[in-house]
Amino acid sequence: MAGDLTVSIDAMGGDAGPGVVVAALARSAIRHPAVRFLLHGDEAVLKPLFAKRGKLAERVAIRHTTERVRMEEKPSLALRRGRNTSMWRAIESVAKNEAEVAISAGNTGALMAMSMFQLRTIEGIERPAIAALFPTKRGQSVMLDCGANVEASAEQLVEFAVMGEAFARAILGLDRPSVALLNVGSEDQKGHEAVKSAAHMLRNATLPIEFQGFIEGDDIAQGTVDVIVTDGFTGNIAVKTAEGTAKMIAEYLRNALRRTLFGRIGAVFASGAIKMLRRKLDPRAMNGGIFLGLNGVVVKSHGGTDALGFASALDMAIDMARAGIIPRIAADRAGVVSALAGPTAVGVAVS
Amino acid sequence: MAGDLTVSIDAMGGDAGPGVVVAALARSAIRHPAVRFLLHGDEAVLKPLFAKRGKLAERVAIRHTTERVRMEEKPSLALRRGRNTSMWRAIESVAKNEAEVAISAGNTGALMAMSMFQLRTIEGIERPAIAALFPTKRGQSVMLDCGANVEASAEQLVEFAVMGEAFARAILGLDRPSVALLNVGSEDQKGHEAVKSAAHMLRNATLPIEFQGFIEGDDIAQGTVDVIVTDGFTGNIAVKTAEGTAKMIAEYLRNALRRTLFGRIGAVFASGAIKMLRRKLDPRAMNGGIFLGLNGVVVKSHGGTDALGFASALDMAIDMARAGIIPRIAADRAGVVSALAGPTAVGVAVS
Repeated sequence: MAGDLTVSIDAMGGDAGPGVVVAALARSAIRHPAVRFLLHGDEAVLKPLFAKRGKLAERVAIRHTTERVRMEEKPSLALRRGRNTSMWRAIESVAKNEAEVAISAGNTGALMAMSMFQLRTIEGIERPAIAALFPTKRGQSVMLDCGANVEASAEQLVEFAVMGEAFARAILGLDRPSVALLNVGSEDQKGHEAVKSAAHMLRNATLPIEFQGFIEGDDIAQGTVDVIVTDGFTGNIAVKTAEGTAKMIAEYLRNALRRTLFGRIGAVFASGAIKMLRRKLDPRAMNGGIFLGLNGVVVKSHGGTDALGFASALDMAIDMARAGIIPRIAADRAGVVSALAGPTAVGVAVS
Repeated sequence: MAGDLTVSIDAMGGDAGPGVVVAALARSAIRHPAVRFLLHGDEAVLKPLFAKRGKLAERVAIRHTTERVRMEEKPSLALRRGRNTSMWRAIESVAKNEAEVAISAGNTGALMAMSMFQLRTIEGIERPAIAALFPTKRGQSVMLDCGANVEASAEQLVEFAVMGEAFARAILGLDRPSVALLNVGSEDQKGHEAVKSAAHMLRNATLPIEFQGFIEGDDIAQGTVDVIVTDGFTGNIAVKTAEGTAKMIAEYLRNALRRTLFGRIGAVFASGAIKMLRRKLDPRAMNGGIFLGLNGVVVKSHGGTDALGFASALDMAIDMARAGIIPRIAADRAGVVSALAGPTAVGVAVS
């Protein structure tokens, strides 16, 4: 396959299935005319979906497999029995350098387990993290970890800071992104040992990171910093709490406007503003969790998304592949290792 | 002081100060004609504030002290040097049975340390928790812990479930509130050891609790359950993330409506609906973190709130005092201890 870049896709993952994936490909193909797609899934199901898609089929290669990872399947089981699944094969294409990036809307835990097994972490990175974009008052921020690890040591939080900073430079195009640790207060003595110790390391080591200390939950949407670092338990809950809150408010506003004639008239006049708000809050526009820290780029789309959502995850995957983020993280991480190896930092890491 | 109930108030706590406190008293006094107020603070500052408040002064007693806990003061320092502060004295009035409930808008950590020292935890409760109300699609839910403890063991999470359930019956007036643990997924194998083990205990012990397992962050605003149980780190970040998201959306909508003439016209017609939304999202209406698990009721108001916000924290304090929640928690906790002492549960607690 010619083309400047190939995206490997698990076409059978997610609740919506191959129909959504192919509709998303059609959207993405227009925006990225030189990108090729490698689809892993059931040929009998996939082929007919391209019948009415004109020349799209010319940019797609299908790798047939009928096996798939179930949404509720235990990651360990998927890893053991899943070598012929569309998910495994999608990652394998990246491991074999047939594609620059893999994407799946399937089971997050299984995708992470298979990605770690096949791609391995970048040297010096203990555990990968899932990064996600957050809409803020200023634009968007990146938060990590959003769910790869339910706990994180101070050293891992420092690794997340390094990876998030590289991500923000690559994807948000920032020269010197600001970074902070999510905590329950901004004072030094606040929080548990891992955040306090990570803050100490980030503050004292001579890292090339614009570290701004601690931020609190209400700082996320304010866009106080570009990169928000936290453990995967807290990050997952923060992302989903924000999504749930936005959804509740949108529904509440819709119902309140429908209740009276004046409300309905107002909604017509204000339809432009309401549409802007809807676009700003549309979770599909921010769809896509990026696995950072592996020797290969893997993007996880939300399992229940539609074609618009999967297409924006595809955009993210393509941006990631073009940005060459892995060598950046590897280089930054090496810098951190030598900075933390200084006499001050070693004492901190031990304490 | 006659009256059916006395509220003890730290009049010097919070960023806004005594002016806000007295204005809030004036509001609350109208709603609660039989309640008396015991104000701790600087008489020279407080007395003039009642000059134009008519008969309000008759229902207020001032206990003079000029010392106060600073907002950034370390809790341990405040505890050591703070016996003459307005905060200490406010709690002392509850410990001495001069008042049924204490309230402060001051330093949360110091208020918790002083409350624990003076009131002690209820027998069988290891650590107190901070409970807060959350606006949801269905009405409101209670979440705890919202910041008293940065970490929580499985046993503590079970205690929080018991306390939150008693709170929901007392304050939300529910017969059989539903309870869930906040987690990163709803499946059994998700999450860290503490949540998994707490779920096991809550599921297996013969507790009189309507336990519904795990919920995720987006369930909070949906009102999936009445009582959301989590550790204080996660709870604090979830509450503040939701607040920050609501604030961002409100600002965004306001700006979007102002941008065009149509938007401004629409806003006029839809002003009823927009006001409803604003009321629903007003953080002041949900102001007040309740310290649960102590032999006395203490309410923490947001430090930066205004008279409306402090008045709603006062309402919450009065409701709490009237509900007689402490004997309820003590009785429920005793039931839990005996339920968990059964042969199944002991094995679980050890594992």
